[in-house]
Amino acid sequence: MALDKVLDQLDGDADHALERLFTLLRIQSISTDPAYRPQCREAAEAMAADLRSIGFDAELRDTPGHPMVVGHNNDAGPDAPRFLFYGHYDVQPPDPLDLWETPPFEPRIVERPDGTKMISARGAQDDKGQLMTFVEACRAWKTVTGKLPVRITVFLEGEEESGSPSLPAFLDANADELRAAAALVCDTSMWDRDTPAICTGLRGMMSEEITIKAASKDLHSGLFGGPAINPIRVLSKIIAGLHDEEGRVTLDGFYNGVHETPDAVKEMWANLGFDPAAFLAEAGLSKPAGEADRTVMEQLWARPTCEFNGITGGYTGEGFKTVLPAEASTKISCRLVGDQDPHAIRAALRAHVEAHLPEDCEAVYHAHGSSGGIALSADNPVIQRAKQALTDEWGKEAATIGMGGSIPVVGEFKDRLGMDCLLVGFGLDDDRIHSPNEKYELSSFQRGARSWARILAALA
Amino acid sequence: MALDKVLDQLDGDADHALERLFTLLRIQSISTDPAYRPQCREAAEAMAADLRSIGFDAELRDTPGHPMVVGHNNDAGPDAPRFLFYGHYDVQPPDPLDLWETPPFEPRIVERPDGTKMISARGAQDDKGQLMTFVEACRAWKTVTGKLPVRITVFLEGEEESGSPSLPAFLDANADELRAAAALVCDTSMWDRDTPAICTGLRGMMSEEITIKAASKDLHSGLFGGPAINPIRVLSKIIAGLHDEEGRVTLDGFYNGVHETPDAVKEMWANLGFDPAAFLAEAGLSKPAGEADRTVMEQLWARPTCEFNGITGGYTGEGFKTVLPAEASTKISCRLVGDQDPHAIRAALRAHVEAHLPEDCEAVYHAHGSSGGIALSADNPVIQRAKQALTDEWGKEAATIGMGGSIPVVGEFKDRLGMDCLLVGFGLDDDRIHSPNEKYELSSFQRGARSWARILAALA
Repeated sequence: MALDKVLDQLDGDADHALERLFTLLRIQSISTDPAYRPQCREAAEAMAADLRSIGFDAELRDTPGHPMVVGHNNDAGPDAPRFLFYGHYDVQPPDPLDLWETPPFEPRIVERPDGTKMISARGAQDDKGQLMTFVEACRAWKTVTGKLPVRITVFLEGEEESGSPSLPAFLDANADELRAAAALVCDTSMWDRDTPAICTGLRGMMSEEITIKAASKDLHSGLFGGPAINPIRVLSKIIAGLHDEEGRVTLDGFYNGVHETPDAVKEMWANLGFDPAAFLAEAGLSKPAGEADRTVMEQLWARPTCEFNGITGGYTGEGFKTVLPAEASTKISCRLVGDQDPHAIRAALRAHVEAHLPEDCEAVYHAHGSSGGIALSADNPVIQRAKQALTDEWGKEAATIGMGGSIPVVGEFKDRLGMDCLLVGFGLDDDRIHSPNEKYELSSFQRGARSWARILAALA
Repeated sequence: MALDKVLDQLDGDADHALERLFTLLRIQSISTDPAYRPQCREAAEAMAADLRSIGFDAELRDTPGHPMVVGHNNDAGPDAPRFLFYGHYDVQPPDPLDLWETPPFEPRIVERPDGTKMISARGAQDDKGQLMTFVEACRAWKTVTGKLPVRITVFLEGEEESGSPSLPAFLDANADELRAAAALVCDTSMWDRDTPAICTGLRGMMSEEITIKAASKDLHSGLFGGPAINPIRVLSKIIAGLHDEEGRVTLDGFYNGVHETPDAVKEMWANLGFDPAAFLAEAGLSKPAGEADRTVMEQLWARPTCEFNGITGGYTGEGFKTVLPAEASTKISCRLVGDQDPHAIRAALRAHVEAHLPEDCEAVYHAHGSSGGIALSADNPVIQRAKQALTDEWGKEAATIGMGGSIPVVGEFKDRLGMDCLLVGFGLDDDRIHSPNEKYELSSFQRGARSWARILAALA
């Protein structure tokens, strides 16, 4: 049977697959930092070339930001169903660099005392390792049978970690080319090391950068301290007012569109054997800090947040400088669920800032991405087939789970192309994505590719 | 008369004096940044060499931080009174560099359309330009008369901008060598461009760096957002609570030891013709932000503050990173007046932090300098003589004023050596010390040296 041969091919070619992934991981495609623009393009070129080598007509498509990669493979013939695979070739900045045990862009295999192995690098999981599981599955099918079981369009972006600014216009301009039976997205996690999972719920996101400007220049705190307004004081008052004592977000209308989790879903979650204490302990914590009347699982999968991702102002170097800074700024992101409207929440946040802005201060806003939450029905046939394929590969029933993160493209596919997503990924909670020492289990990479090979067969 | 010849000598040697100052300004003696340790030493060596060239037995004295420079000149004979001149050869960091119109360590003369000239460089005023006014006065006396009118010990430190960590122990260890009739300190300002001033009141300072640590590592806000405590949220709540709506500091006992300004002093201040609106406008501001029931002059000279000099946490680079940081920190400094106890205030600040620290969070404290406020009596004979000398030089009666800044060494001299300070300086409010484009008026430098030449004569 073809599938068995494809799986054997993946096993036999595992070393080469790893070398191909390492080549991609060495490219510093950090999309948030303009200094790395050439490296982002290099990663896109590398992906397009690799896709062409396995029968895709892949090419770069320029955008105002980093290029998209689009490639079609119609070997399966005009009657075969067509699916869109989405991934992203960009990665998060690696800082703080001094916390990495090995350099972030020099990928390597690290073997644990128990013999298990992991791939250590920035992007090892998010999303280079994950997307290559799909590419390797395609390669194996092409090698063994000369074609893929279904028609596939691969669509990769390079701005996912920057809020995907070019994505909406690109989807609108290329809707007919990109619309397919469903999108396949590999950017999520397994339930645990042994249990594959399909994600059917995702949080959305609204992110905003706010700068409070006060004096026309940095001032000396001796000469001006007292009479001169301090923007750090103003900013801290503003953001300190965003949560009440119970951990609830105080913005007007913030919880509009947040639905209660159905009891049946809560019950399913309860059966997953999630251990909140162990989850928190993995991060060195012991007490949930979200809404006081919600379980950790609800806080993660079903409740919105308002988080401060960064703050800066004044002198932050070694030692002391008695400066009154001219400005201070923060980066805020809200994770959204259900039918929360990201635009209404951005407006409420700005209104909160304006309401607390003293005389002589000005707030400057910089909108980053916004997307609503997503909930997929678990009885979708694509989900059902993929679930069986995953169960076959891992020997354990695949879970259908929620996820605390956001994949804005899922909402964009739904809104702009009317297309649902199959969210299958092989990450683990301890992969440290976006943090120093990001890793991807070698087993995730190898059995991930085998899983996709099975899913492609199941979708035919 | 000798003094007239000394003043002529200063006028005739003005170009060389400027070149000597420029040589000192080119040395990047940034004491707060450990990377500039060699340059701090270089500045100390340069000062010692220059002092030796005019008859001081100057040498470097090592400390755990940057070296002290100590030099004695006893040419005036054993019966002449002895004074200690104090200054500092270190400077503030120059950042943000992109706001400098000319490079901070390439001093130059800038001529205004009205013909007045200023010296532009980091340290041009604070304190290299100021301390060199005294050195040039000594040089002129030495050149003209072969000696100084009084015995002088010059004592320079290189950690003033870092909170003077090595100073207290050094004073204790060298008390007999350093104790003198009074200390002469040139680190303050004139009342305005035409009016010399002696500062008889200074604010003290207590500075503290506070880091809030939460998770054991940076977290992904999708995977952990909600349950994981965010240290920026914790820190902002803590510092937002330090001021009430009226601009008063809320720390327990903060105002203990703050005395009401006597009516006579308020009246003297009122006669100085201070324009609060113009003062604020110079910084692009219009509304005083200190205690609502105090005038701007009181807020500056007679009332304590609690300021945030810096804050940092999470991702602060270009673009966005959806991280939950492991820690966030702030640098806080309180300007102190009257008999406020810096140690009690540090303790109250730490108690405030601990009282608002949620579970799973830890606060790490790093104490920087602390010194109480200073008030000198205007009828001190040294002050009276200097006042006359200044009035003679500038043709306008010297003002006795307060100052919003802190010169911790003044408190240390009082506490450890029982020595009062004569605070005479030639800075102006618009000198932008600690900010980009720091400058010193050429007239301040040149007439400052003439002023010290007169003061040395008056003290004999």
